Amino acid sequence: MANRPIILISNDDGYQADGIAKLAAIARQLGDVVIVAPVRQQSGKSSAITGGVPLKLTKVSEEEGMTVYSCDGTPADCVKLAFYTLFKEQKPNLLLSGINHGSNASVNAVYSGTIGAAMEGCINHVSSIAFSSTQMDKVLDIDTAVPYIQSIIESSLNEPLPLGTMLNVNFPYGEIKEARYCREADARWSEEYVPLADDPHSYTLAGYFEDREPNSQDTDQWALSHQTVSIVPIKVDRTDYEFLRKNNKPLKLG
Amino acid sequence: MANRPIILISNDDGYQADGIAKLAAIARQLGDVVIVAPVRQQSGKSSAITGGVPLKLTKVSEEEGMTVYSCDGTPADCVKLAFYTLFKEQKPNLLLSGINHGSNASVNAVYSGTIGAAMEGCINHVSSIAFSSTQMDKVLDIDTAVPYIQSIIESSLNEPLPLGTMLNVNFPYGEIKEARYCREADARWSEEYVPLADDPHSYTLAGYFEDREPNSQDTDQWALSHQTVSIVPIKVDRTDYEFLRKNNKPLKLG
Repeated sequence: MANRPIILISNDDGYQADGIAKLAAIARQLGDVVIVAPVRQQSGKSSAITGGVPLKLTKVSEEEGMTVYSCDGTPADCVKLAFYTLFKEQKPNLLLSGINHGSNASVNAVYSGTIGAAMEGCINHVSSIAFSSTQMDKVLDIDTAVPYIQSIIESSLNEPLPLGTMLNVNFPYGEIKEARYCREADARWSEEYVPLADDPHSYTLAGYFEDREPNSQDTDQWALSHQTVSIVPIKVDRTDYEFLRKNNKPLKLG
Repeated sequence: MANRPIILISNDDGYQADGIAKLAAIARQLGDVVIVAPVRQQSGKSSAITGGVPLKLTKVSEEEGMTVYSCDGTPADCVKLAFYTLFKEQKPNLLLSGINHGSNASVNAVYSGTIGAAMEGCINHVSSIAFSSTQMDKVLDIDTAVPYIQSIIESSLNEPLPLGTMLNVNFPYGEIKEARYCREADARWSEEYVPLADDPHSYTLAGYFEDREPNSQDTDQWALSHQTVSIVPIKVDRTDYEFLRKNNKPLKLG
């Protein structure tokens, strides 16, 4: 069908991950899928981009309704390169990123390569949605989430997202009660490192997630801990407009 | 002096860059400086973090009022590791990042490792400021900017920034008229890659910056193009609250 929407899919776990295969399987029911995803694991890459070193785009497979490319860069590189090469004349109708193996709710979104890929679509004015499961296993069980993922993709195909805003969708493992729009919880990672036994000046990242407002009911963390899909609209523009309203004069020197 | 403030400084150009040396020289007049910065160039690393691989923290030099450490990770890694090791008991009074060799105004902030380092301070509730010059040379001429940098540091020491908000300060090269608080311009990079001559499937990042609103007078891009220092308050929380107000019901399935 000539008029099927084109859906570009990327992720940060690599083009061979289970999560991206499952997302592509859902998306193929709604449009023609083009995957451009990292060759290898790119978790925690945020919106990092690669300068100076050439990036290679490789066609991995092609079948009716789905073409798969790999790219040896970051998630944001994959999307940038896809736009420049495959979608130079006509943008895709939708960009999806994920399904990430692990939550990207709250402050995790800052570090997430899954979000980095979707943010790149958003910057280029393509409706973009990141999907993440709280489950971290190699094989994801997304049965209960499928109807929600379908519904969110369908509504974004029918009505594009506002320019400069993308969706950060996270879903819990197992029973799901509903899906809710919500805000990012205020959180951080603490006690983050473990020193190496044989080299006390070397440290490996570890730590635990600290929700600073576990009792706020309007956050993504609250939703996830109550078996609810969290849909957080996030913006490219991080300007603190409230701060600007309070500081609307030129800075005085001295 | 026991009561001098402690100022942590990082960057993305590496601990030996001219920009960080010049920022440290200014900061030393106002407090005791601890530098924890990448061993090598980390431009474009955004808020990327390193998992799985140990990070090494190395003391490079120590003198009255200034200690320098290098870390073989990203800018965000440097700040995380500094907080975990050097500032476990007591946080620094201020975190500075830069001076970056090149603008981090507008959408550049998304990709910037300089911003990534400052964002990490902000997430950990330390007042954090990123400084960048539009000049990209190896040696920066910051003479006209020094009084503004001093003034911005001093006011943040006197009155901490709101929790969850950091400052993204960019300054032009040469004459400076004033400093202004402003918002991020809406922009993107376009025509981003150059194919390799001997391998048409490999591409090197290039492109040009496209300001989508060059006539808006309240943006950082406008300020910089009018010889004005831009101070953009940016938030960790990217939630689009306007979108939330319009979509405040649970998502309907189907």
